[in-house]
Amino acid sequence: MTSIATKNGQFRLKSRPSERVSADNFEYSSESLKDLAEGEVLVRVVYLSLDPTNRIWMSDVEQYMPPVQIGEVMRGLGVGKVISSKNPRFMEGDFVSGLLGWQEYLVSTGAGAFPLFKLPDVPVPLQAMAGVAGMTGWTAYFGLLELGQPKAGETLVVSAAAGAVGSVVGQIGKIHGLKVVGIAGGEDKCRWLKDDLGFDAVIDRKKPSWKQDLAKATPDGVDINFENVGGEIMEAVYDRMNLHSRFVLCGLIAGYNDADDSKTKLSLSRALMKRIRIQGFIVTDFAERSAEASQKLLQWIAEGKLKHKETIVDGLTNAPEALNMLFDGSNTGKLLIKVSEP
Amino acid sequence: MTSIATKNGQFRLKSRPSERVSADNFEYSSESLKDLAEGEVLVRVVYLSLDPTNRIWMSDVEQYMPPVQIGEVMRGLGVGKVISSKNPRFMEGDFVSGLLGWQEYLVSTGAGAFPLFKLPDVPVPLQAMAGVAGMTGWTAYFGLLELGQPKAGETLVVSAAAGAVGSVVGQIGKIHGLKVVGIAGGEDKCRWLKDDLGFDAVIDRKKPSWKQDLAKATPDGVDINFENVGGEIMEAVYDRMNLHSRFVLCGLIAGYNDADDSKTKLSLSRALMKRIRIQGFIVTDFAERSAEASQKLLQWIAEGKLKHKETIVDGLTNAPEALNMLFDGSNTGKLLIKVSEP
Repeated sequence: MTSIATKNGQFRLKSRPSERVSADNFEYSSESLKDLAEGEVLVRVVYLSLDPTNRIWMSDVEQYMPPVQIGEVMRGLGVGKVISSKNPRFMEGDFVSGLLGWQEYLVSTGAGAFPLFKLPDVPVPLQAMAGVAGMTGWTAYFGLLELGQPKAGETLVVSAAAGAVGSVVGQIGKIHGLKVVGIAGGEDKCRWLKDDLGFDAVIDRKKPSWKQDLAKATPDGVDINFENVGGEIMEAVYDRMNLHSRFVLCGLIAGYNDADDSKTKLSLSRALMKRIRIQGFIVTDFAERSAEASQKLLQWIAEGKLKHKETIVDGLTNAPEALNMLFDGSNTGKLLIKVSEP
Repeated sequence: MTSIATKNGQFRLKSRPSERVSADNFEYSSESLKDLAEGEVLVRVVYLSLDPTNRIWMSDVEQYMPPVQIGEVMRGLGVGKVISSKNPRFMEGDFVSGLLGWQEYLVSTGAGAFPLFKLPDVPVPLQAMAGVAGMTGWTAYFGLLELGQPKAGETLVVSAAAGAVGSVVGQIGKIHGLKVVGIAGGEDKCRWLKDDLGFDAVIDRKKPSWKQDLAKATPDGVDINFENVGGEIMEAVYDRMNLHSRFVLCGLIAGYNDADDSKTKLSLSRALMKRIRIQGFIVTDFAERSAEASQKLLQWIAEGKLKHKETIVDGLTNAPEALNMLFDGSNTGKLLIKVSEP
């Protein structure tokens, strides 16, 4: 057994934010690590994944898991390294993924909604395993292919296209022969999506002409809307959706910081007239098929068909402020906190 | 050939209503019937079906067919009798169903979005063929079974439950082992649904306690919402929908008379968190399977498992005012205009 840590820096939820998250919503403290019980494993957190769902978990609203309770360690996905193990499924030195939490170390049996699992031994950097080849990639994979039911030649629009999920959705769309239109904020992101990732068209939502640009980029309407945002972007895409089109409801980030629900609202008239299917989903719905997704995603990465980018912020203590980058749109690709060296 | 009519009383659309329909929105005139061309058939209209979709067709909004144009004969479904035919698919004396229009006679080849078809020769009254065993029944059948994907023991809520579609949906739900909860307006309707049609529970939306009554009637939440109405009824049911539940979007009648779309709006947050599938549909999507639906519906009627009721208003000239009954909730079951004796 290598050097055993005895102290664990942790963020515990102190108060629920009403709008943006701030460091004041958390209590940071260093606590003693308890000894491992039978079945438990000690994991050193390497990368924490910052996702819009972190913000949802902080609110006391109806959601897909119980909200994080006041005083609880902040919930978060991530990848880490097994330091010691009393669980036969994990060995010292294994890299693992799961709900590690906003802390330096996790002591856990690994059971739960996102069970801890050992990462495959593949030639892919660890930050990709925390994003494109991990749960982020699975979200894009199952959302687009299972709910979107794409047919080659159809038009896909994806919002927050330069984000972790959106950038993967668009590339999987291209692999499946779709015409892919991304919506993103700012020239740099748009250039990356078009030039590096091969999107057919990109709409810069910061341009005053973005609605007209969207219309021009989708002359045949929209067959699949992969929704990450909500608000006026959602409405603009919805208004162009075709007969029997599919609305993959993956996120509504424009609404997560608001107490009112105006940015999550949509008139169902068009869904009725155009017989649109709107379907909400969370990646855990497809948990039993994650191996299939991983295999495909790793294959596409190896073949150069699936590119990835990470925005990495150094230091666990920066997590609260960094979470707001998702809402400001100041990250490109997967947003990670580097907690320790691999 | 029997006595050939020469004059045809017709309602043509004169102006588009902004709210309720009135007789002033139409021009009633008697026009000469032209001779049949090769391939055409002359149909005497017997029953006109009044449906919420008539109101949609009168508005110049995005919809599933072109709106009725000003000056055009008002579009309407119905059943009638073939008086003469130059079309080999129809013979004098046949009873037929299709888009007959708000008129005494139809001259048509029978092609179109709702193609004219010969009714089967079964021991079911003609008014049932215009409702429960016709397009109304098909709507309930495909909407509930294909989009709702019911599993025995699940809870189904249907709004406008005493209406033409709703009353059939609930009974098909009972046939498939569902717990069926109807929402209707007024004691008479509620009694009919519970005592005669066998609904498990009925919510009277005219009672101040209707929301609490709905909660009490659905202790295990809602697995299928068959939506006909919109507005606060839609929201109340939606707020009780379960994980992976299905929202069959068949109608939004509360919104059809309004210029604004507030009664058709819904926050998608719950659909995301509970992974609800919201799917719009129109019965024409299943046109090729109508024989299957008819066979089942007629079988259930013959077995006494599927009951039906019609509200019949006499006289074509009463059609404009009678259409408002759908919005006032003053009809029970299928609303028909009797235009002539069978």
